[in-house]
Amino acid sequence: MNIKRILIIGGDSRTEYLGKALTEEGFVVNFFDESVPLKSAVENSDAVILPLPCSRDDKTVEAPSLSEGVLLKDLFHLIGKNKLLLAGKMSEGVKAVADVFSVKWVDYFQREELEILNSVPTYEGAIQIMMEELPKTVFGSNVVITGFGKVGEPLGAMLKKMGANVTVCARRPSQRAKARIMGLQAVDFSYLPECVLGSDVIFNTVPGCVIGREVLIGSKESLIIDLASKPGGVDMEAAKDLGVKVIWALGIPGKVAPITAGNIIKETICNIFGELGE
Amino acid sequence: MNIKRILIIGGDSRTEYLGKALTEEGFVVNFFDESVPLKSAVENSDAVILPLPCSRDDKTVEAPSLSEGVLLKDLFHLIGKNKLLLAGKMSEGVKAVADVFSVKWVDYFQREELEILNSVPTYEGAIQIMMEELPKTVFGSNVVITGFGKVGEPLGAMLKKMGANVTVCARRPSQRAKARIMGLQAVDFSYLPECVLGSDVIFNTVPGCVIGREVLIGSKESLIIDLASKPGGVDMEAAKDLGVKVIWALGIPGKVAPITAGNIIKETICNIFGELGE
Amino acid sequence: MNIKRILIIGGDSRTEYLGKALTEEGFVVNFFDESVPLKSAVENSDAVILPLPCSRDDKTVEAPSLSEGVLLKDLFHLIGKNKLLLAGKMSEGVKAVADVFSVKWVDYFQREELEILNSVPTYEGAIQIMMEELPKTVFGSNVVITGFGKVGEPLGAMLKKMGANVTVCARRPSQRAKARIMGLQAVDFSYLPECVLGSDVIFNTVPGCVIGREVLIGSKESLIIDLASKPGGVDMEAAKDLGVKVIWALGIPGKVAPITAGNIIKETICNIFGELGE
Amino acid sequence: MNIKRILIIGGDSRTEYLGKALTEEGFVVNFFDESVPLKSAVENSDAVILPLPCSRDDKTVEAPSLSEGVLLKDLFHLIGKNKLLLAGKMSEGVKAVADVFSVKWVDYFQREELEILNSVPTYEGAIQIMMEELPKTVFGSNVVITGFGKVGEPLGAMLKKMGANVTVCARRPSQRAKARIMGLQAVDFSYLPECVLGSDVIFNTVPGCVIGREVLIGSKESLIIDLASKPGGVDMEAAKDLGVKVIWALGIPGKVAPITAGNIIKETICNIFGELGE
Repeated sequence: MNIKRILIIGGDSRTEYLGKALTEEGFVVNFFDESVPLKSAVENSDAVILPLPCSRDDKTVEAPSLSEGVLLKDLFHLIGKNKLLLAGKMSEGVKAVADVFSVKWVDYFQREELEILNSVPTYEGAIQIMMEELPKTVFGSNVVITGFGKVGEPLGAMLKKMGANVTVCARRPSQRAKARIMGLQAVDFSYLPECVLGSDVIFNTVPGCVIGREVLIGSKESLIIDLASKPGGVDMEAAKDLGVKVIWALGIPGKVAPITAGNIIKETICNIFGELGE
Repeated sequence: MNIKRILIIGGDSRTEYLGKALTEEGFVVNFFDESVPLKSAVENSDAVILPLPCSRDDKTVEAPSLSEGVLLKDLFHLIGKNKLLLAGKMSEGVKAVADVFSVKWVDYFQREELEILNSVPTYEGAIQIMMEELPKTVFGSNVVITGFGKVGEPLGAMLKKMGANVTVCARRPSQRAKARIMGLQAVDFSYLPECVLGSDVIFNTVPGCVIGREVLIGSKESLIIDLASKPGGVDMEAAKDLGVKVIWALGIPGKVAPITAGNIIKETICNIFGELGE
Repeated sequence: MNIKRILIIGGDSRTEYLGKALTEEGFVVNFFDESVPLKSAVENSDAVILPLPCSRDDKTVEAPSLSEGVLLKDLFHLIGKNKLLLAGKMSEGVKAVADVFSVKWVDYFQREELEILNSVPTYEGAIQIMMEELPKTVFGSNVVITGFGKVGEPLGAMLKKMGANVTVCARRPSQRAKARIMGLQAVDFSYLPECVLGSDVIFNTVPGCVIGREVLIGSKESLIIDLASKPGGVDMEAAKDLGVKVIWALGIPGKVAPITAGNIIKETICNIFGELGE
Repeated sequence: MNIKRILIIGGDSRTEYLGKALTEEGFVVNFFDESVPLKSAVENSDAVILPLPCSRDDKTVEAPSLSEGVLLKDLFHLIGKNKLLLAGKMSEGVKAVADVFSVKWVDYFQREELEILNSVPTYEGAIQIMMEELPKTVFGSNVVITGFGKVGEPLGAMLKKMGANVTVCARRPSQRAKARIMGLQAVDFSYLPECVLGSDVIFNTVPGCVIGREVLIGSKESLIIDLASKPGGVDMEAAKDLGVKVIWALGIPGKVAPITAGNIIKETICNIFGELGE
């Protein structure tokens, strides 16, 4: 497999910047735009890239700008076994369709480096929301972060650099040790109801209901910014009852920094090509 | 002079937070609201605080929420020589009126510590604007800062911490040396037209026309955020001609972080009291 | 098991500070000093702590200050199944002896939080060596770090904060991604021979021969500081041939910061107690 | 005046590195070594550089490696009015001799950028001493800094980055404001006796007796590192009485980082040349 010509179907401004970035790397990039039949577009390519997420209904490619939808089964039939498919956030359903046609696929969203690189637009976007919402500076503010993984860690590091007082709530002693050598305070989840008292912002990064009623009672004056993917980490009903403001910020990279987000996908795809021996 | 009762006249949300903060320090704070005659309001106070700026017309106190204006000459007559006046950004005209009535005044905006503390909401607000305007992350972006004084220096330090590539343009070798030991690149103004090429954002902090046509020609793709007070630092006409986007961001602290801004004024005023032997 | 009385045997200044720190936490701590028979010393304790490493010969406790050695088998016989043994870096041999006597043991050196917390004295000690050896400042120096794990990452972060130009050499794309979002340069090991050229210092953190002859040829002007545990990461013979200076820095925490090192062990042991329900 | 050929007389390893760095900038550099008569050495140069300090006795050039001393009056007579003299730390006596012979001189030690650039080797050296002396890490240690000028400020910033708890003691509210926006604690000198309690290290940067008996009484467990030039800032007699350890660290840049120190002088001298229109 020698990849030179790339077809990009669907997506948003991120895919545009992705295409631009791939062109700069020397690839011949085509954006599918219905002026050419899908068949010949696919035939003239060595690899096909679908957006992030690649589909919302497991049937068509996520492509808001196309007047007619591109059916996954039609597309995968055309791709067949001789071309490479790169897609973001492939559901089990999508993977099943791909497998039906023996398509060789890679879900670039599963790559660890993409997750790490995406943490930058994510934490910057999170801090931007905090700046926009709070009538005080990040400097000197009291922040609680639940979870200390790929997003929580660099978010905590940056907030600390900006002068916030950061308390991390994490389950594992080793995560708390990491937080502490970075100059953050760290507690176990059992202390969460206590440590949210007086906080200005609580950032959640855990995709599981860690911010329940007993925590929300103490955070009536706080803003909660939930960065966790579905199902999120906040008991939304209790938050409503108690009048706690919650902002559920999903898909930040594509929204606040599509150029950066496109570049990150580009880089991840180039790594994939490299490992496949391209 | 033993200051205990403080009268605050005019201002915006900052003055409200200022009053709150002074109350927390133990002062008895009154906000003038026209329900009481000015005379008795002043009589029942040891010091009068006017907002930042204290007046825009040299005649009345800046007080958008009052239905009738408070005339400076009436107020200063009532203050007389036995009470203290604290006001922000006093013009020569305002000072002259105060002197007519032998008012003992201090312009808290002239205090160096206020300028330094205000740099935090200023640079945070500047970075917020950058985040909102740019389709890429601060991390990895190319930034030029003109001027390296009370705002330029902490702005550069923070952008560096956030991962931007920062080039400082400063006149004095000692300022450039300071920039360099902070890990920033530093050049003389003669290199400015060259170093703006490829920049994402140019922050100006110099109140004097340093970003003229010859600089703007190279910054067509850049966003310019002017943080300098009047007259600003950008040749606005040339910018319009050349289609360069310029955001003139004035009075950031009061806009993005009124709580912090109010606290900063409180602290400065407490320092003033301390030095006057209160 | 309700742990209150702790017996510490052997070790160096770290164990002293460990004992002091445990006392401050409310434990009754005894140091074994031969004035009391081992039997009664063990009987009067709920847990026994051995140093890091607990033994160098798999037979006796590492205890340079004791005139007579304490045999592991005698000690473990006395500990039996009703007391807890906490020891550092237990070899298979030591574990086997402990198991013979059904001793309930925990090797605190295996705890992830200890490794993370120990990274601080380790990287500080590494930087101290660099400062002592180099006739130039860390600021502005060129540094290469091989490996980007529990030591390499915080070492790179600190050197960056100190103004060094840091290039990380790591195998996995995700590690390189992590390095890059921290503002470091990152390359694959295939670039190592190239990227050591012009470096002032090379820190190795990989316990495997990654710095071979082909790398050493390009690092004749560099100082190599090997932080990896046995067998180290440098081809020592080739280094000798080529005249490259290598400092193999082992056991830094105990050497440069015994108080901190003792406190770290204390904290780890308290975590262990907590998890055992003490 | 067109400077091309430079004669360097005296000094230590810094002057060697200075010469090397000037050579790399394209200058023709000669080191005076007594193999050539002083007269012809001076005649064959456009500028003469003396070390830092240029003299210790106001009579001869500071030149430990020369067997015979170079008398300032002989040298200055040879330099005359047509060559440039660059010297470090010229005393009033040295300046007077230079003026007798109408020598055009510049004291590069008086340049603000040199002082700023030198702060880097100074604070790194100060931290190195702290690391060598303390049995604990910088991370988590309690540090007091007296004075917040060209050395105190970057020292405080770096210690903070390394995770120390830093309290700055400074006279002016604006200095304390600066310290606080950098995330440090800041107090007035009246609080010094109180805030040294429990400190691990006290760094003094004030050349005046700020650390007197009343402070030393509370710092018996602390290490004092005095970075101030003569007369220093510690009441040495009281320190002796009370058994407080004081390290007076003078001339750190030349000692810990002569390459860097030589480069800093080179850069300053190039700035001077630039301003003189060379």
